[in-house]
Amino acid sequence: MKKLINNPDHVVDDMIKGFLKAHSSSISKVEAHHRAIIRKYSKEKKKVSVIIGGGSGHEPAFMGYVGKGMADGVAVGNIFASPPPTPIAEAIKAVDTKKESILIYGNYQGDIMNFSMAADLVEMEEDIEVKQIIVKDDVASAPKGESEQRRGISGEFFVIKVAGAASEMGKDIDEVYRLTEKANENVCSMGVGLTPCSLPQTGEPSFQLEDDEMEIGLGHHGEPGVEKGKLQSSSKVAERIVHDILADMSLVKDDEVTVLVNGLGSTTRMELYIFFDEVEKLLSEKGIRIYRSYVGDYSTSLEMGGCSLSLLKMDSELKPMIDYFAYSPMYEQK
Amino acid sequence: MKKLINNPDHVVDDMIKGFLKAHSSSISKVEAHHRAIIRKYSKEKKKVSVIIGGGSGHEPAFMGYVGKGMADGVAVGNIFASPPPTPIAEAIKAVDTKKESILIYGNYQGDIMNFSMAADLVEMEEDIEVKQIIVKDDVASAPKGESEQRRGISGEFFVIKVAGAASEMGKDIDEVYRLTEKANENVCSMGVGLTPCSLPQTGEPSFQLEDDEMEIGLGHHGEPGVEKGKLQSSSKVAERIVHDILADMSLVKDDEVTVLVNGLGSTTRMELYIFFDEVEKLLSEKGIRIYRSYVGDYSTSLEMGGCSLSLLKMDSELKPMIDYFAYSPMYEQK
Repeated sequence: MKKLINNPDHVVDDMIKGFLKAHSSSISKVEAHHRAIIRKYSKEKKKVSVIIGGGSGHEPAFMGYVGKGMADGVAVGNIFASPPPTPIAEAIKAVDTKKESILIYGNYQGDIMNFSMAADLVEMEEDIEVKQIIVKDDVASAPKGESEQRRGISGEFFVIKVAGAASEMGKDIDEVYRLTEKANENVCSMGVGLTPCSLPQTGEPSFQLEDDEMEIGLGHHGEPGVEKGKLQSSSKVAERIVHDILADMSLVKDDEVTVLVNGLGSTTRMELYIFFDEVEKLLSEKGIRIYRSYVGDYSTSLEMGGCSLSLLKMDSELKPMIDYFAYSPMYEQK
Repeated sequence: MKKLINNPDHVVDDMIKGFLKAHSSSISKVEAHHRAIIRKYSKEKKKVSVIIGGGSGHEPAFMGYVGKGMADGVAVGNIFASPPPTPIAEAIKAVDTKKESILIYGNYQGDIMNFSMAADLVEMEEDIEVKQIIVKDDVASAPKGESEQRRGISGEFFVIKVAGAASEMGKDIDEVYRLTEKANENVCSMGVGLTPCSLPQTGEPSFQLEDDEMEIGLGHHGEPGVEKGKLQSSSKVAERIVHDILADMSLVKDDEVTVLVNGLGSTTRMELYIFFDEVEKLLSEKGIRIYRSYVGDYSTSLEMGGCSLSLLKMDSELKPMIDYFAYSPMYEQK
């Protein structure tokens, strides 16, 4: 697959260079590590810091989530690969104002290992108290009851937004942790893949699908889904995904959810809005109310075709967190 | 090409349904026409109204540009086809507060004909004074000196933003027109295509490119470019595009530009940031300063692969317009 790049071995660093230049009014690099990025003015306020990270290739996740009311720092990995412990630790240290930090990342072995090592490092060397939140929202990746095995996908956006709001509100680390973990418990997601992506270094498709096929439940790195079959209508796909997500969430009539319809890369906004319309109809039929809606590319898989749906069950505690003002490169450009 | 849709004949109306639901807090439909959309509270303030529109398939353009500090209303056409006069006229009427309206659209025959007919209609029937701005920023589509023949592409975002700001500031119609036309005169753009898009109704690619080819200067509907050849590096493409744009703009050392690197649909943000980095280096070498930067999908061509670059020459009048607060569905989701 064709890419508009320079050296395939340098795409992540080249991207970071452009990112830092494009968003220089709100984002800084960390001198100690070129793969750690923080928001400017992150030390202006004494608060619990929120640190995120993961593999590249999911842009705007995760770099684009760094900003006021969102994350304070991010560690950037290679494509679809966890960042090592050092940039994570350097990001934590660079925004530290009160020796308390919340780390948020997806449920992948490499991330768990590296974020945990970074946590140990800063706890030992800097005496920073660290709490970790591991996002596992993809209901297609393991059955109910085995949610510890589930992958983190687009729902991570909500979890980070809640953490960023709680931290910006000045809550203490236990409270930021409690609210963030509540968002983590309350969010379920599931995706569908239509076309594969390809890594810049190989140029090879990440998985195979025939011209008339789709794969429901596909992971954000092309991990196998729960059903591969003929391409279906948006309405049918929405039915399946909403069904599987609701089977996992204890929602009753008049419950409220925040909805994210997330594009995986090459899916048009036209398709995302059509899918959103179907999701809204299905929720409405069940008397489930939409509190807030997000439609767009929040967590991509390079140029993969398809989308994912995330539903966050709302309550009186989460509403002000989701409504809280946020401002990051992904929204920056008024 | 695969699409996640329902009936290919209904994609535009299905999309509009989802759009209205997802952005119900800030966007309304116009009762008189289902293809006219306006911003809520558009009548709260007496001001010159800004009306935009064009074919679908360019999302977030143009629906996503409707909001505070941007456009007041939009008429939505079929895919890559101008909206007819009626929804344009209905959008104008629905937001009218002081009988003065600015219409902004790209330089395409269908749009010129239909927007002009709509203008005649509301001038005759409603006594609304209408001024029209035709965007023609694509330097690849006709040589310098024949700019009247040029197509409108991603630079339209800047033109609409300036109009929206000037109108929101309460300026009179002559002044809104003058400033908007200045933005129109000051913006030049050029694109590159890597992969075609396909219309939902046909499923056929909009143009042909080999697996190792690209086309420089390609239009936003797949119109032929100025050079078709082997895929080159981001750095080489940036060199060519910046060269051709600068050949058209009278920029000297220490001049300032606002930069938009616009994704055409399936191009990853990784590629857009890498391209932005190259553009920044080239401008910097010439001593041209970047006033503000935008990187992302602002005006797409369905799932086309590639990007376009728009440069807006800044001056002391345009700066406050570009900095002016804007809030539309494309930025909405804090």
